[in-house]
Amino acid sequence: MNLIEKSIATIKPLNETVYAQARQRLADQARPAGSLGMLEDVSARLAAIFGTLDVHLPHKVIITCAGDHGVTEEGVSLFPQEVTPQMVFNFVNDGASINVLGKHAGARVIAADLGVNYDFDPQLPIFHKKVSKGTANFARVPAMTREQAEQSVSAGIEIVNELMAEGPLDMLGTGDMGIGNTTPSSAVIAAFSGIPVEKLTGRGTGIDDTALANKIRVIEKALDLHRPDPTDPLDVLAKVGGFEIGGLAGLVIGAAAAGIPVVCDGLIATAGALIACELAPAAKAYLFASHRSVEVGHAFMHERLGVEPLIDLRFRLGEGTGAAVAMELLDASTRVLCDIKTFEEVAIADAQKP
Amino acid sequence: MNLIEKSIATIKPLNETVYAQARQRLADQARPAGSLGMLEDVSARLAAIFGTLDVHLPHKVIITCAGDHGVTEEGVSLFPQEVTPQMVFNFVNDGASINVLGKHAGARVIAADLGVNYDFDPQLPIFHKKVSKGTANFARVPAMTREQAEQSVSAGIEIVNELMAEGPLDMLGTGDMGIGNTTPSSAVIAAFSGIPVEKLTGRGTGIDDTALANKIRVIEKALDLHRPDPTDPLDVLAKVGGFEIGGLAGLVIGAAAAGIPVVCDGLIATAGALIACELAPAAKAYLFASHRSVEVGHAFMHERLGVEPLIDLRFRLGEGTGAAVAMELLDASTRVLCDIKTFEEVAIADAQKP
Repeated sequence: MNLIEKSIATIKPLNETVYAQARQRLADQARPAGSLGMLEDVSARLAAIFGTLDVHLPHKVIITCAGDHGVTEEGVSLFPQEVTPQMVFNFVNDGASINVLGKHAGARVIAADLGVNYDFDPQLPIFHKKVSKGTANFARVPAMTREQAEQSVSAGIEIVNELMAEGPLDMLGTGDMGIGNTTPSSAVIAAFSGIPVEKLTGRGTGIDDTALANKIRVIEKALDLHRPDPTDPLDVLAKVGGFEIGGLAGLVIGAAAAGIPVVCDGLIATAGALIACELAPAAKAYLFASHRSVEVGHAFMHERLGVEPLIDLRFRLGEGTGAAVAMELLDASTRVLCDIKTFEEVAIADAQKP
Repeated sequence: MNLIEKSIATIKPLNETVYAQARQRLADQARPAGSLGMLEDVSARLAAIFGTLDVHLPHKVIITCAGDHGVTEEGVSLFPQEVTPQMVFNFVNDGASINVLGKHAGARVIAADLGVNYDFDPQLPIFHKKVSKGTANFARVPAMTREQAEQSVSAGIEIVNELMAEGPLDMLGTGDMGIGNTTPSSAVIAAFSGIPVEKLTGRGTGIDDTALANKIRVIEKALDLHRPDPTDPLDVLAKVGGFEIGGLAGLVIGAAAAGIPVVCDGLIATAGALIACELAPAAKAYLFASHRSVEVGHAFMHERLGVEPLIDLRFRLGEGTGAAVAMELLDASTRVLCDIKTFEEVAIADAQKP
């Protein structure tokens, strides 16, 4: 077995006994049943993941996977490819959006180079997992080989394993950086769903109508040319994906194998999560969707993954920013389950009053 | 001038120069324009409230206003009136939902008795602002006199003034506790909007179809009987409102007069905010809506108040729980505005590298 297969085989089902105990405690709390809505669902699932009602999540890490895309040659993005490494430096220098929101959430933010078209100094404090310096232009040839697809997913798993070896890790957030990467993400969704590309494709960082029509045409042609097999997730990733998307898939598999919750960010991170869960349906139990992106294809993926996003603040940034905000809600949910008193505990507290 | 008039006269418009500076900084940050959605809007408004781009909100307080309702005689709620004082004790004992979520948000939670049908020990650490021990049953007579309506709003303002006198206060959250209080809230919304009661009335803590039909009939009859004047917010409050709803209105006016943001919770707190902003339209600039309640009338009020709720987690609890979660987002937004680097700052950081 290779690392991917080994990790998938390691994923355990959730603890159903603890899940039922959590649901019972939520129902017994001194408030109308179900009145804390989605925070209740989240708290019960976290309890089942950790096998205890008293979950604490102090050690949070957000991994922002970066990669470049040959398909930018087709004019699918507003920004030039040079921005990808610039943003990696910005992550390292603590000045990017994800640094700010990660800090607010109490999470460490670490960038990972899965396939940036730039030679980073090996001393740069990032995960160095470059598969290649950018994918090939999938408008003409497959984005990557099948071996590279496997390598990118394995790299994501390795990152989780290295983090776990380094010290305690309670929750992982996933984010992306890669100029042009809404294009492969939409292609991945179209490949799995068979839904028309035009319904699944949005404006990314803000392209106009002409550029959007071009982006749709590029994706349609690529799907026609390469015919990715929707029953073979690595084939989809290889033909129309991206290295950071593979890495993001690996993070989800790695987290599920490690038995910790993973909060995925917007369109690109969710495309990675989709590949992960097509490879390993058992990983879904560990996956939390952060936010509803304004990107059109996002809703489809949430439905397919069976997860409901927690926030809807009209983010369209990536980097892990949605995951960071959602992590605070997961944190809050653990306190909801454990610390809100039941009617019985309230009565005991009353009886003990002087 | 009485306290209400004096406070309304004190409310200042926001600092438009700082607002424009905030918008410019957000647009200059190293990320796609508008990509942090609603957090950008919130951060710019907070900057304009405080007159600086570098807003910090360490001193947060959530006031949970409690009151009882004579209309519970009509069988509009699942729970008996005794639960209102029990929950006040639960707030004081730190075991309720709002204590847990307030703590997570870094906010002090203080209950306020505006009109609970119970004699609390004057030593109990709550705001003692009882107008009367519960409103009258507005199915038969007006809920309160006009003097009591004024007194309840004044009490909310006094709470803010006492908090401000006690020490620094950066942000106020509002919440409610009062068995039966979705009924007066729906009545208040119907009185202002003229929208049919059946469209504005929900299930509160979870009543069934028969009880819902009864609740609608009770409100319709009361509006018919008392004919509250929608151009006179205190008349609406007096005839079909509640003491805690008046207090919640006062909190919004008091916060706006003190120049601090106020985050309002669900249906009942928003009914209070609606009365406040009908009395003092200038207060709207200081008001932030926390969450989209599943209660039907909530959306109408947000439209009327011109505010958009930040979260939608299917809460239907009250107490200030939505406000608590939203406060964390307001906090995060201040860091978004101030700490995410602009393209220029990124370039300077790059140039300074060794």
